[in-house]
Amino acid sequence: MSVADPGIIIEENLPRDGLQNEQVLFSVRERAALIEALVGCGLRRIQIGSFVNPARVPQMAGTEEVFGLLKQREHVIYSALVLNRKGMERAAGCGIGHVSIFVSVSETHSRRNAGCSVDEAMSGALTLIGLAKGMGVTVQAGVMNAFGCHFEGAVAPGRVLEMIGRFAGEGADEINLADTSGLANPAQVESLIPAVRSMTELPLALHLHDTFGFGIANAHAAWRVGVRRFDASCGGLGGCPFIPGASGNLPTEDLAWFFESMGISTGVDLGCAVELVMELERKLGRRLPGRLAHTGYRQFCGGLGSE
Amino acid sequence: MSVADPGIIIEENLPRDGLQNEQVLFSVRERAALIEALVGCGLRRIQIGSFVNPARVPQMAGTEEVFGLLKQREHVIYSALVLNRKGMERAAGCGIGHVSIFVSVSETHSRRNAGCSVDEAMSGALTLIGLAKGMGVTVQAGVMNAFGCHFEGAVAPGRVLEMIGRFAGEGADEINLADTSGLANPAQVESLIPAVRSMTELPLALHLHDTFGFGIANAHAAWRVGVRRFDASCGGLGGCPFIPGASGNLPTEDLAWFFESMGISTGVDLGCAVELVMELERKLGRRLPGRLAHTGYRQFCGGLGSE
Repeated sequence: MSVADPGIIIEENLPRDGLQNEQVLFSVRERAALIEALVGCGLRRIQIGSFVNPARVPQMAGTEEVFGLLKQREHVIYSALVLNRKGMERAAGCGIGHVSIFVSVSETHSRRNAGCSVDEAMSGALTLIGLAKGMGVTVQAGVMNAFGCHFEGAVAPGRVLEMIGRFAGEGADEINLADTSGLANPAQVESLIPAVRSMTELPLALHLHDTFGFGIANAHAAWRVGVRRFDASCGGLGGCPFIPGASGNLPTEDLAWFFESMGISTGVDLGCAVELVMELERKLGRRLPGRLAHTGYRQFCGGLGSE
Repeated sequence: MSVADPGIIIEENLPRDGLQNEQVLFSVRERAALIEALVGCGLRRIQIGSFVNPARVPQMAGTEEVFGLLKQREHVIYSALVLNRKGMERAAGCGIGHVSIFVSVSETHSRRNAGCSVDEAMSGALTLIGLAKGMGVTVQAGVMNAFGCHFEGAVAPGRVLEMIGRFAGEGADEINLADTSGLANPAQVESLIPAVRSMTELPLALHLHDTFGFGIANAHAAWRVGVRRFDASCGGLGGCPFIPGASGNLPTEDLAWFFESMGISTGVDLGCAVELVMELERKLGRRLPGRLAHTGYRQFCGGLGSE
């Protein structure tokens, strides 16, 4: 890899997207320990939780306390998902410096996921971006179902671009395109991303789901057109509960091994990530979709490197 | 897709690679019915079985009889795997017009899989190619572990190219690069394939395994550098039994949907392939790795097409 290329930055989604729908509850202390373990695996950006109603999402209760237990490190960014003003105030109140805000481009998905229309969600998100800016909080603004919707099918790229334009205009610091339904293909990725790039110079992150097993191919296509930031979740835990069959996030360890095998640095300690996934599988009592933990990673990753 | 591009040709490996290690035995009649069903799904090339010792591989006994039960069609190519002179004579004797011959580039894998050294296997393969040519049989000659070996790690591309040169020199009609251990990555694919192309103009097929979930990304990389022929197996059934953890073939239905979703024709009827996989799962009593059968394919494939 050239010196000019900083490699891939993976934003670990396990503590939020991964845990939010699990039956097994993780205590505040366990969540903090998990995040510390992720830092130990070399992850430099971690979505530590969300500031949502604990009555609706008990798994995400007490995200302030989780944050309070974390060791602050100069090179590690902790972020959290925020849905509304109350959440934003909680986030800012506990001192977290980065938040993510997502709006679905699909009317049906917006109503099922957020309980309101796209216009209403968009209006709320723009207010939140303004609020965050006022509080000195860095905001990532994302479009859900940017590559197609389980309920509505194809999504017009123009609608995605329009939303991004409004996010950027309001002062968002980073854009995220989420393939919430897992419907993206490389041709779409290579078409939409340059279109986004021609609109804004904001950093662009991709949140890919692996519904059809195209996630890695999409990540590679995005990398070809310059994307260096990817969301992923150890073991592939997580995914949108409002979209049936939308199997989970890209497994962090597989995505990292994919890039590392081509000599592209991710900073992830693969052995450490595999141990974490195996521990997580023991706790959850089931096998997760990630491959690396089940393929004798030591001889593969140790023996072959970037050859 | 342009008129000049015939789209993708998938060689269905289910009746051979898929069934050869299954505990559930398929009768000759069932194997023939399965192949007819695959033809009904639009598959134009099918590896119907192997001509090997039935005492060693009972699942592949009576491949002559399977072939005899098949309806011959001008647009469908039936092929079979051949390991030795006896197999070649059986193949030619029953009138099958296409055979595949594989040699592993890895010494350790060759000894475990074929029971002899690479040199010995290579010498045998060259003899078989000559034999096939004399009998008017079309030969695909392939290199196993062309992208790395589970046992030996990295494989020098020069060794692969040298084998291909010898295959071509002996009169092979088609080359196959097999990622037997599932260790390929797109960077390797995009480097090795042009090197092969610069050596020979023979058609080139790729046999990818999905050990780390990189199979689709590798197929896409190969497509970028001009490969249009891919081996796959419905449901993802199969894989090399001598390589632990080398999970199966690329699922035909997922690979077809991947290309079709980008408007690249494969000729595969996705709905038909999904029904076949579901039937196969019932018969085998387990879920197969292929995704499309488990993701509500109708709304996805029906509603979104190549959008």
